[in-house]
Amino acid sequence: MKIGLIGLGKMGLNLGQNLIDHRHEVVAYDVNPKAVEEIQKYGAQGTSSLQELVDSLEKPRIVWIMVPHGVVDSVLSDLKPLLEKDDIVIEAGNSHYKESIRRYNEFKEAGIRFMDAGTSGGMEGARHGACYMVGGDPEAWNIVEPIFRDTAVENGYLYAGKPGSGHFLKMVHNGIEYGMMAAIGEGFEVLEKSDFDFDYEKVARVWNNGSVIRSWLMELTERAFSKDAKLDGIKGVMHSSGEGKWTVETALDLQTATPVIALSLLMRYRSLENDTFTGKVVAALRNEFGGHAVERS
Amino acid sequence: MKIGLIGLGKMGLNLGQNLIDHRHEVVAYDVNPKAVEEIQKYGAQGTSSLQELVDSLEKPRIVWIMVPHGVVDSVLSDLKPLLEKDDIVIEAGNSHYKESIRRYNEFKEAGIRFMDAGTSGGMEGARHGACYMVGGDPEAWNIVEPIFRDTAVENGYLYAGKPGSGHFLKMVHNGIEYGMMAAIGEGFEVLEKSDFDFDYEKVARVWNNGSVIRSWLMELTERAFSKDAKLDGIKGVMHSSGEGKWTVETALDLQTATPVIALSLLMRYRSLENDTFTGKVVAALRNEFGGHAVERS
Repeated sequence: MKIGLIGLGKMGLNLGQNLIDHRHEVVAYDVNPKAVEEIQKYGAQGTSSLQELVDSLEKPRIVWIMVPHGVVDSVLSDLKPLLEKDDIVIEAGNSHYKESIRRYNEFKEAGIRFMDAGTSGGMEGARHGACYMVGGDPEAWNIVEPIFRDTAVENGYLYAGKPGSGHFLKMVHNGIEYGMMAAIGEGFEVLEKSDFDFDYEKVARVWNNGSVIRSWLMELTERAFSKDAKLDGIKGVMHSSGEGKWTVETALDLQTATPVIALSLLMRYRSLENDTFTGKVVAALRNEFGGHAVERS
Repeated sequence: MKIGLIGLGKMGLNLGQNLIDHRHEVVAYDVNPKAVEEIQKYGAQGTSSLQELVDSLEKPRIVWIMVPHGVVDSVLSDLKPLLEKDDIVIEAGNSHYKESIRRYNEFKEAGIRFMDAGTSGGMEGARHGACYMVGGDPEAWNIVEPIFRDTAVENGYLYAGKPGSGHFLKMVHNGIEYGMMAAIGEGFEVLEKSDFDFDYEKVARVWNNGSVIRSWLMELTERAFSKDAKLDGIKGVMHSSGEGKWTVETALDLQTATPVIALSLLMRYRSLENDTFTGKVVAALRNEFGGHAVERS
């Protein structure tokens, strides 16, 4: 199929190559002309504007958007007037599912079919087989399913139903990921604080072979320890990019108890601090009521 | 090799067959004569007493103990006077690492080499390839390593070092398992509480193919939903068998922050209650200070 691909960053460039590998025609655009030049090397048709991209596609047009979270709305608002009834937009970034529902409805007013696709598997996945969770119009799904099938790993795509369901699943996936990663991190913290002298790469390896906790995350743990036996070169600062927070916010809206995921998020926030005001207050109180020594800053 | 196997429950019976598959000679004993009869069908030599088992082995004897946690000490105290210097005892149950260190020292006084082996992978693992974490005497390890190599999956065994290190690793493995399972459970709770209508088996399947959270636990999740689409037949009561608690107790002793693992344990305890006294107290207080309605029991 002929697919318009907007956004040629780390994910988009890899996805573009993946599409070309599967004999799809890729018409590509990025605000950065260098990125367009790069993907042309792999056989994509480069374009220098959204108008040129849209003009290069056949109706109903299929446009795949893979741009950073912050610019999705601006790309969509530039794109929308260029599209026509029955065209299909696949928004495959990390968007909040409520924004995807809003965008679906906005595009629906113009007869344009909007699909929200959550994508997992990182750059390797985009290049060699991703995992997709897709929501939106079921008739549009029938048209675009081959694109997902071709660029996913086997059984690695799911049409989840209503608008927003794709990004909702991706959000919860990331919430689970936060909890799993925190559990793995805390487990190795206990090993590190113990009197034993473990080789963490070997520990991760044995846990990846036959144990209950074998997982891709544990494989990544093994890989990380293989590069840096004690991770001395990495600070324990855990940034986050939103989906964990959305999962917890959604759980709060649904009055759903998700303490482990919530705490894994809060511990990420804690890791961003060198010192905490909580700590100052508690230390001051212990001093006030019990005369316990405080450490001076 | 010729191996004495004590304990022919779900794990021991499967391990015995696994050993026999790999051309080891198994001399088996269990307090339940039916279990001994059962393993004889697979080619093991059955015995009717610990004395007979010990007499059937060649020096240095290798005895593998796979009995429930509560009877390890009684089996060991019956066995110890029957063994001689240089014999090797492998205790492969779910023991606390501090007990394993104590037992190592007690056996060492008699010149008997005690090894602690944490075993993961469940019954399927015991039968077709387990995951082992082993601590204890390094010379004894050289003798028994082939047994572990043969009955583990590839790369599925680790000699972790000092006495207790095997069971320490197994304990932490289980702590990580608690956190990972809680995160998975909470994620599906959010899906269930949402307005979307997800097919959980399909969700688990797509998450097992190419996603960041693909894991054996997610495969088991997929399997569980394939049997019972909404798990209607299962109550959400989460029992535990000790290792999660030990992980948290150890973390406390080491003054190590493991909030996610700790909370996953506490939420298991919460799941055992139909009502809570915490809830009664908080509801009563809301009523006292704000006149908020309470639900009457």
